[in-house]
Amino acid sequence: MPERRDLANAIRILSMDAVQQANSGHPGMPMGMADIAEVLFNDHLKYNPANPEWLDRDRFLLSNGHGSMLQYAALHLTGYDVSLDDIKAFRQLHSKTPGHPENFMTPGVETTTGPLGQGLGNAVGMALAEASLAADFNVSDESVVDHHTYCFAGDGCLMEGISHEACSLAGTLGLGKLVVFYDDNGISIDGETEGWFTEDVPARFKAYGWQVIADVDGHDAGEIDAAIREAKADADRPTIICCKTVIGWGAPNMKGTAKVHGAALGDDEISAARKELGWSDETRFAVPEALYEAWDHRQAGKQAEAAWQQRYDRFASSHPDLAAEFDRRLDNRFPGNWADQARTFIEKTQADGKRTATRKSSKAALGAFSNVLPELFGGSADLTGSNGTDFDGYQPISAADKSGNYVCYGVREFGMSAITNGLSLHGGLVPFGATFLTFSDYARNAVRMAALMQARNVFVYTHDSIGLGEDGPTHQAVEHVAALRLIPNLHVWRPGDDVETAVAWRAAIERVNGPCAIALSRQDTDHHERDADTVAAIDKGGYVLVDTKDTPDAIVIGTGTELELAVNAARKLADDGVAVRVVSMPCIEVFASQDAGYRDSVLPPNVTARVAVEAGVSDSWYRFVGATGEVVGVDDFGLSAPAEEVYAEFGVTVDGVVQAIKRQL
Amino acid sequence: MPERRDLANAIRILSMDAVQQANSGHPGMPMGMADIAEVLFNDHLKYNPANPEWLDRDRFLLSNGHGSMLQYAALHLTGYDVSLDDIKAFRQLHSKTPGHPENFMTPGVETTTGPLGQGLGNAVGMALAEASLAADFNVSDESVVDHHTYCFAGDGCLMEGISHEACSLAGTLGLGKLVVFYDDNGISIDGETEGWFTEDVPARFKAYGWQVIADVDGHDAGEIDAAIREAKADADRPTIICCKTVIGWGAPNMKGTAKVHGAALGDDEISAARKELGWSDETRFAVPEALYEAWDHRQAGKQAEAAWQQRYDRFASSHPDLAAEFDRRLDNRFPGNWADQARTFIEKTQADGKRTATRKSSKAALGAFSNVLPELFGGSADLTGSNGTDFDGYQPISAADKSGNYVCYGVREFGMSAITNGLSLHGGLVPFGATFLTFSDYARNAVRMAALMQARNVFVYTHDSIGLGEDGPTHQAVEHVAALRLIPNLHVWRPGDDVETAVAWRAAIERVNGPCAIALSRQDTDHHERDADTVAAIDKGGYVLVDTKDTPDAIVIGTGTELELAVNAARKLADDGVAVRVVSMPCIEVFASQDAGYRDSVLPPNVTARVAVEAGVSDSWYRFVGATGEVVGVDDFGLSAPAEEVYAEFGVTVDGVVQAIKRQL
Repeated sequence: MPERRDLANAIRILSMDAVQQANSGHPGMPMGMADIAEVLFNDHLKYNPANPEWLDRDRFLLSNGHGSMLQYAALHLTGYDVSLDDIKAFRQLHSKTPGHPENFMTPGVETTTGPLGQGLGNAVGMALAEASLAADFNVSDESVVDHHTYCFAGDGCLMEGISHEACSLAGTLGLGKLVVFYDDNGISIDGETEGWFTEDVPARFKAYGWQVIADVDGHDAGEIDAAIREAKADADRPTIICCKTVIGWGAPNMKGTAKVHGAALGDDEISAARKELGWSDETRFAVPEALYEAWDHRQAGKQAEAAWQQRYDRFASSHPDLAAEFDRRLDNRFPGNWADQARTFIEKTQADGKRTATRKSSKAALGAFSNVLPELFGGSADLTGSNGTDFDGYQPISAADKSGNYVCYGVREFGMSAITNGLSLHGGLVPFGATFLTFSDYARNAVRMAALMQARNVFVYTHDSIGLGEDGPTHQAVEHVAALRLIPNLHVWRPGDDVETAVAWRAAIERVNGPCAIALSRQDTDHHERDADTVAAIDKGGYVLVDTKDTPDAIVIGTGTELELAVNAARKLADDGVAVRVVSMPCIEVFASQDAGYRDSVLPPNVTARVAVEAGVSDSWYRFVGATGEVVGVDDFGLSAPAEEVYAEFGVTVDGVVQAIKRQL
Repeated sequence: MPERRDLANAIRILSMDAVQQANSGHPGMPMGMADIAEVLFNDHLKYNPANPEWLDRDRFLLSNGHGSMLQYAALHLTGYDVSLDDIKAFRQLHSKTPGHPENFMTPGVETTTGPLGQGLGNAVGMALAEASLAADFNVSDESVVDHHTYCFAGDGCLMEGISHEACSLAGTLGLGKLVVFYDDNGISIDGETEGWFTEDVPARFKAYGWQVIADVDGHDAGEIDAAIREAKADADRPTIICCKTVIGWGAPNMKGTAKVHGAALGDDEISAARKELGWSDETRFAVPEALYEAWDHRQAGKQAEAAWQQRYDRFASSHPDLAAEFDRRLDNRFPGNWADQARTFIEKTQADGKRTATRKSSKAALGAFSNVLPELFGGSADLTGSNGTDFDGYQPISAADKSGNYVCYGVREFGMSAITNGLSLHGGLVPFGATFLTFSDYARNAVRMAALMQARNVFVYTHDSIGLGEDGPTHQAVEHVAALRLIPNLHVWRPGDDVETAVAWRAAIERVNGPCAIALSRQDTDHHERDADTVAAIDKGGYVLVDTKDTPDAIVIGTGTELELAVNAARKLADDGVAVRVVSMPCIEVFASQDAGYRDSVLPPNVTARVAVEAGVSDSWYRFVGATGEVVGVDDFGLSAPAEEVYAEFGVTVDGVVQAIKRQL
């Protein structure tokens, strides 16, 4: 039986060799945290390498994602579908082993990390998902949901503000199955952290209500094991295990310095490290068979899943309906009545035809849809009433009772967004989180990560323009819709009335492989008449809302609350004998994904007199109106005043649109 | 002599009346923190209402900016140029009293707040500026720099992650003249905070190394006064005074609830509050003359500034050169040799002509310019070497020694950016802060605030595209340059070589009324030949780098490291007899601000065959290439691989540009 240290050294060897081969990467963290990973993966983590999707597996997240080789090495050694060739292709094009862990590239990788701190937020989300699903489904003696979430985090993660947001909330919510390992190595890229990171981390986490296990020697397997046992024994508080480690442990000349953080060690130091580690084989990437055998978790993983399967089977036979619902939710299937119910609600909304704020239409849609989809799991960053996320049937959860479907996230936009990413990645829930659109800035990188990770997550952004009024320029989103549209794989909906809002919500819920943002108004806006075909066309992201008899003289494109300006401008010009087609374009990305035939039918290339109106920066629209078209927008910061005065000040009015169209003719 | 409570009640009356008149705003915080403000403004704060720009004034910041009426009331009562009519125009178009405090609208308002937590970051920056200037200029017995920074913060501010970043660093740096008042009222918008904010705030700040004064009754003037004295007595640690308050204190039926947070109280409650406060006058906005007299700080302020002026005069006579430098820096003037030295460096850079990474060119420019401008005050979020901000002459500061010109901010992008905003607003320093471009996301709202506040601040963003290579999509900025360009009043430079980098830096430094972002490459790029006129044209943001003899057949626009692709594509096409003009456009905003004649001379309207090349999302360019033009860009997330392979994968190559131009012909 190999020594534990030898097992850990296999991670070290593979990591330094892979970084050297790529001549790029971060050997310091994997070498420093190898002993911790070894104890965790070999003695505690519950997983089945043959089935990375096993839903009751423990989740393992690497918040300090630059240490990706640690995870790849562990996945390879334990028997996941990550081969030695994959390891050798570290950081190469289209390999399974990219520079930072990517959940969509590698079996066994739960989330994508690299931007520091967010993995912690994802971990809080996963632990929250587990607690929520446990509350919903563990009704018999057979716990079908019962797993831990383990997260590695470095100094950088803990310096980031998001670590504060996510961990403070995790303490409040009492997420007892969350275990964080803090890699306290005293080094970050700029050198010894004592110059910029001197806070008392254990005291800080105690202040958050966590169980803190301090002063653990991160290179002593016994201490690590004991700490994990202690962590698991506390069911009511999340645990942070503060591990003193040496970055680059094993590299005799570079360990404990910033030099080992983010660059290959070089041939000489790799040879010296092999000696230091007592690793006799100089061949790169060669791991002795005995170590492979000791690491191999395939048999144990199979048994672990089989044991769970027995519990599940007993649960399914004693609670067949609940088990069916459990399967449906974890398989990401919609209930049989979903399509009908959603369509019925949209038709009813069209028929009822209310002039109202789209944030209120959103609340109505949420109430209707959550009634069919109990997996809708909402929240707001302390703006519940304003965001309209207190939908009919919403029920906040608490430390004492996690059976609800809503989280009061507090004023923590970034934390909320990373947590909802974790909820989404865990499975079983369809998360959304809300704040004012202007504060999407605070969470922007988590929105990006959702898009990169292909995670279903709905970002609800109300108070979406200068229509916010008196709160002024700090709160008036002028560039945010356009800025969100730039994020690849994000669908940004800015619905123009009650019906478009309901359609946007349906589209967001049904988009299983990526996130949506929905921008909603504070102020009321007109409802628009549509026949059934036109209602159906909303799904295409852009469509003809009001057409002309013959070829239009001009086209006006509108979104959101400015759609009514477009419609009224077209009406006014019709009185003057000018034929203007009104195109509503609530989602540019979806419209752009339609075939050219459809796009040209909405925006005929021969109609070049074009105006777009949107109360925000104009950049999004030049690709549709052309260099000679005109955009009625707001290319400056807003102003504190009643909304209608701000609109008038910027000329975003019916008359402003009329004049712009006239200039185009 | 009025009672202290009556003085505080004047703030309450004006606040609730103004919110009622606007029928919009936040009465709860001003009524809750009125007693604290009264003690601070009347007994501790050093200020001269007649000269809000007095440079040794104490700084007062309202991080919980929704309580703006508290500040407006205090400014009005103490004698600033904020009239009762201004108060009555609360939240009206172009008034001095916008919904949230705006430094560019109101005398006495130091910063713009509203987005929670950032005021705290600004306050850390101001305290840091004070400490830095004190280290540089307090050489005699006469301290010309000696003031405190006071900041009000609410639960929301402390929930935000930025409070963690800024306050942890403030503790490490030992900013002893920073005093934060925590408005611990137990209420946020969603209701009682016990559901989402249960951390032990005093313990948390003790963990940061702060002096913590806990359990202060925020409605007891004596306790408040004692706490402020204790705060000022500790010169080595920042202080947080945790004040238990009742939100909406004085509103008998609504106080202590979320109802009083963000809406007018209504006529009935206002009447009831007047009774509760013992305020006999029912007339709205009427403050008794005796209270005005007691609040009036004009005489005391004049004396305070005069006392400082005497110290300054003695300093100026004993250290005339130092005093001249002090005046220059605080007056925002450039040294006499600045223009020449900067031009000389740029000419030398053009003459030397190095193929190198623009981040390295940036480091060279910083070294040269900081040599002339000691007020350049840099930093990095733990990427000093990678960002190239370890320029010749950089000197990190520490708690023990603040005489340097550089801050190791740690992994705290948002905190860094809000701190540099504070440094800028304080005056006397020209701050810059650096990170990878992709992490501009983490700080985005602080960049926005700099632009809104018209603050000079240079955001240095290296590793600006897929050219980052192996670190992969989490680290490859594809949408960030375009997204930054959407922020009004921000100049975004993406220089194409060594010379453009130096010009960008000069432009950023000389832009005294707004921020710049500079996007810089990790990888090497060509130097381009230019005559003197062409070097001068870089200042215009866009210019003809390579021209054709006659009217060009096509125009190709390039930025950053893709400029060399544009040049090489034009060369290749020239061999085929196609005349292609190469336009370099390092800063769209500056180019767009040129007159139409210049713009048309660079991009002649009759040359419609146009291509832009930039290794990022294409949206920025349609306004220049038109709906029929082509953009060679990256409209998807990047990939982990060596840079040149990633470029090839996305077709951002010389051949890709050549083909695009051919399609345009």
